[in-house]
Amino acid sequence: MASTLRVTVWNEFIHERTDKSVQAVYPNGIHAVIADALAEEFRVHTATQDQPDHGLKEEVLAATDVLTWWGHAGHERVRDDVVERVQRRVLEGMGFIALHSAHFSKIFRRLMGTTCSLKWREADDKERIWNLEPGHPITEGIGEYCELPREEMYGERFDIPPPEKLVFIGWFEGGEVFRSGCCWERGHGRVFYFQPGHETYPTYYDASIRKIIRNAVRWAAPRVRIPFACPNPPPLEKITPKNNPAGGAQT
Amino acid sequence: MASTLRVTVWNEFIHERTDKSVQAVYPNGIHAVIADALAEEFRVHTATQDQPDHGLKEEVLAATDVLTWWGHAGHERVRDDVVERVQRRVLEGMGFIALHSAHFSKIFRRLMGTTCSLKWREADDKERIWNLEPGHPITEGIGEYCELPREEMYGERFDIPPPEKLVFIGWFEGGEVFRSGCCWERGHGRVFYFQPGHETYPTYYDASIRKIIRNAVRWAAPRVRIPFACPNPPPLEKITPKNNPAGGAQT
Amino acid sequence: MASTLRVTVWNEFIHERTDKSVQAVYPNGIHAVIADALAEEFRVHTATQDQPDHGLKEEVLAATDVLTWWGHAGHERVRDDVVERVQRRVLEGMGFIALHSAHFSKIFRRLMGTTCSLKWREADDKERIWNLEPGHPITEGIGEYCELPREEMYGERFDIPPPEKLVFIGWFEGGEVFRSGCCWERGHGRVFYFQPGHETYPTYYDASIRKIIRNAVRWAAPRVRIPFACPNPPPLEKITPKNNPAGGAQT
Amino acid sequence: MASTLRVTVWNEFIHERTDKSVQAVYPNGIHAVIADALAEEFRVHTATQDQPDHGLKEEVLAATDVLTWWGHAGHERVRDDVVERVQRRVLEGMGFIALHSAHFSKIFRRLMGTTCSLKWREADDKERIWNLEPGHPITEGIGEYCELPREEMYGERFDIPPPEKLVFIGWFEGGEVFRSGCCWERGHGRVFYFQPGHETYPTYYDASIRKIIRNAVRWAAPRVRIPFACPNPPPLEKITPKNNPAGGAQT
Repeated sequence: MASTLRVTVWNEFIHERTDKSVQAVYPNGIHAVIADALAEEFRVHTATQDQPDHGLKEEVLAATDVLTWWGHAGHERVRDDVVERVQRRVLEGMGFIALHSAHFSKIFRRLMGTTCSLKWREADDKERIWNLEPGHPITEGIGEYCELPREEMYGERFDIPPPEKLVFIGWFEGGEVFRSGCCWERGHGRVFYFQPGHETYPTYYDASIRKIIRNAVRWAAPRVRIPFACPNPPPLEKITPKNNPAGGAQT
Repeated sequence: MASTLRVTVWNEFIHERTDKSVQAVYPNGIHAVIADALAEEFRVHTATQDQPDHGLKEEVLAATDVLTWWGHAGHERVRDDVVERVQRRVLEGMGFIALHSAHFSKIFRRLMGTTCSLKWREADDKERIWNLEPGHPITEGIGEYCELPREEMYGERFDIPPPEKLVFIGWFEGGEVFRSGCCWERGHGRVFYFQPGHETYPTYYDASIRKIIRNAVRWAAPRVRIPFACPNPPPLEKITPKNNPAGGAQT
Repeated sequence: MASTLRVTVWNEFIHERTDKSVQAVYPNGIHAVIADALAEEFRVHTATQDQPDHGLKEEVLAATDVLTWWGHAGHERVRDDVVERVQRRVLEGMGFIALHSAHFSKIFRRLMGTTCSLKWREADDKERIWNLEPGHPITEGIGEYCELPREEMYGERFDIPPPEKLVFIGWFEGGEVFRSGCCWERGHGRVFYFQPGHETYPTYYDASIRKIIRNAVRWAAPRVRIPFACPNPPPLEKITPKNNPAGGAQT
Repeated sequence: MASTLRVTVWNEFIHERTDKSVQAVYPNGIHAVIADALAEEFRVHTATQDQPDHGLKEEVLAATDVLTWWGHAGHERVRDDVVERVQRRVLEGMGFIALHSAHFSKIFRRLMGTTCSLKWREADDKERIWNLEPGHPITEGIGEYCELPREEMYGERFDIPPPEKLVFIGWFEGGEVFRSGCCWERGHGRVFYFQPGHETYPTYYDASIRKIIRNAVRWAAPRVRIPFACPNPPPLEKITPKNNPAGGAQT
């Protein structure tokens, strides 16, 4: 089921070059493993923060249907004008998938309008991700739940606008819960947040996680591309001329 | 029914000093008329763009329960750090009411994450504002609808996240419709957008419009004040130690 | 673009046999004209109230992907057990499209839980239906709006649960507005309410209206079929035995 | 803080008369313990299924601001006309709080339109109820979470329309999660579902649970009382007479 959808997999690509425990899991970068999962079905391109314009020049975004984003240590190093460019493109119709610690990325916080803060703990929690929407495209092929033997705990309160569709809730061994899969529309684009994916765990090798991200790309595929406009149209019906005495105040 | 709620009425205060037709309607500024409407019930303070920090220093915001915002010509002149300060305060719990052309203010667009674009026309349209939620605090004392003999037309598509509660829909003489009263929560704060209020019309002298803004202030009153946090708590349940062979990838 | 989707077009088929002005517009019944619009793309079946089980036996519903419903004079004559059968099938995943006066049908009110009341007037109002969601499948091929030269006025407040997606708002010549196109999900099924379609007007011959109903059928197509269940699963994690002193109250 | 709000606490009152282990926890019925929690603040009345009209005659409902409902074994024994009476009253503005196994009550399913099914297990699970909305009236005085040492497990997928506000998520020791506190509006009334309260556990003696139910009553208090209507108003604007050639079809 090859698709012509064009996905850009973005990664800040920092931990993998500075931290041996991350390197051991993702020797070529987290983006390489996510790209590998998506290349089974889509036309995949990768981009990283150290590239000019963070690899996200206008022409790259113009040729991107869905953008996936992984960032953590370098959130503040992402240039504001690039963030605005990505946001504009999402609002025109491009799909956007925020992965794990991208909850704190500038672009995700821009799209949400909130702090996107949460509780967290690196303690080898087991996670069970419950599927609340068996009919939703993002859960296709996932049963009642999937499990990760170890994942960073992310816990409520997750400071986000209410998801327009809450797809997954995570159960954590240490006692917390989390809205792990959340859908929104912003402008003409679709946005999915998906919680799993800590850099020291092999989460992006997990078959269910890979399937969910592929499903999310398909769900987030653009339906339209509508550039910004603020039109000033003539009336469609006749407007009765008003008695307008020098703009004076009503009494 | 005096209230201890502290409202800051913000206005860019530009048109009233540069345009005679606006001056004729709002000789002391739009903020003076809105403040007058609110002073019937609340403790009111005003602030304008030309003041230091646009009149929105930390201590002003700390002493503000609900902030109302009117801007148009000067949106881009509002400093980004002040916008971030206001956003932070809303997310902590302060109420925020965006009036009319404030749909394009930096702060409203920040809270929404979208372009907030719309159709518009200055053509003396009559507007009828329909009340969809007779039980909602914002519509208290408003009947099935209220009317404005002349208002700037704002038409759909209004590019906003879906309102969490759609309170008013506007009918325009020239043939358009608009989601004229929209509620959201962002962080711990409440946000209301209210469409009427073009600077050349005496909208803010209208008794129903004044009542609605007072109602909205009461609705938007803070319930909590919770500063930003991203806690790292210990587990609440015992976590089984995992077999973690050198962080290796799962197979 | 032939589709294998199976649509059942249901009509009470009363006005067309009792009222000459309706007969003049829909000589073979409203269902015949709707079925004609849908047969361009789907496998279409019709059913009417006078048939055994109102034409909605279990096997018919089992072979229906999307059910469209038009009713008015005969709402109360629809048997409760058939209503429950249809509801069960929707909750399992079948799409359901309520047309015009079906807002008061037993089945629509059952799915909504509210009265579904509204304002109405038969006075040859012109209607302009505004498209709020240009990227939504239901608005595909519809521009900014479509118009009906004459339609029954339906006005707010429409007593429905908030639509999960508000697709259309209607503007009426006589001064009212209406949420004319509304999406919900109920159980595993999708529900669309679409306001146009008064029996004395040729609404269902209009090209835009026909396109919207076809779009809605495609949107409402079942994604799953999941029968009712209320499972009693064993625990997935070990539960610590509790000290349970004879079920006594906590103190 | 005495309130004049009138609460009717409804209980089917079956298990407590037939099952010794329930009798040991709630010797005078679950309603007696809930009423006791509410009487600290409100004017409380109780009603049970064995009374004439299940204790819910028109005059009782007319004098009820908020109705709480506990049922389980006797759901099907509740008369349909009483269910309709309660539904009508909720849609007019009365608050409704469905407790625990009331998820399957006729009245709750009527208000939701869905099956309201879920997973369940009686196995002494510990439950931790996470507070997602620290600013919401229903969570006032509850911290980040509250705990129940033993509760019946209710697990997702809970088949409900998406809550308009999701207030609590439950974490269960056996590995499941549940949307434990959910808010909706139906008609002019407010509806809260709250999951804890299995009949063999002393849940309704727990201070946090009692506080949450009191909070919920305050939140669900009627804002209006609006009886059913379906008005046929004259136009507010002049309607142009249409050329209507014998009702003929458009071409």
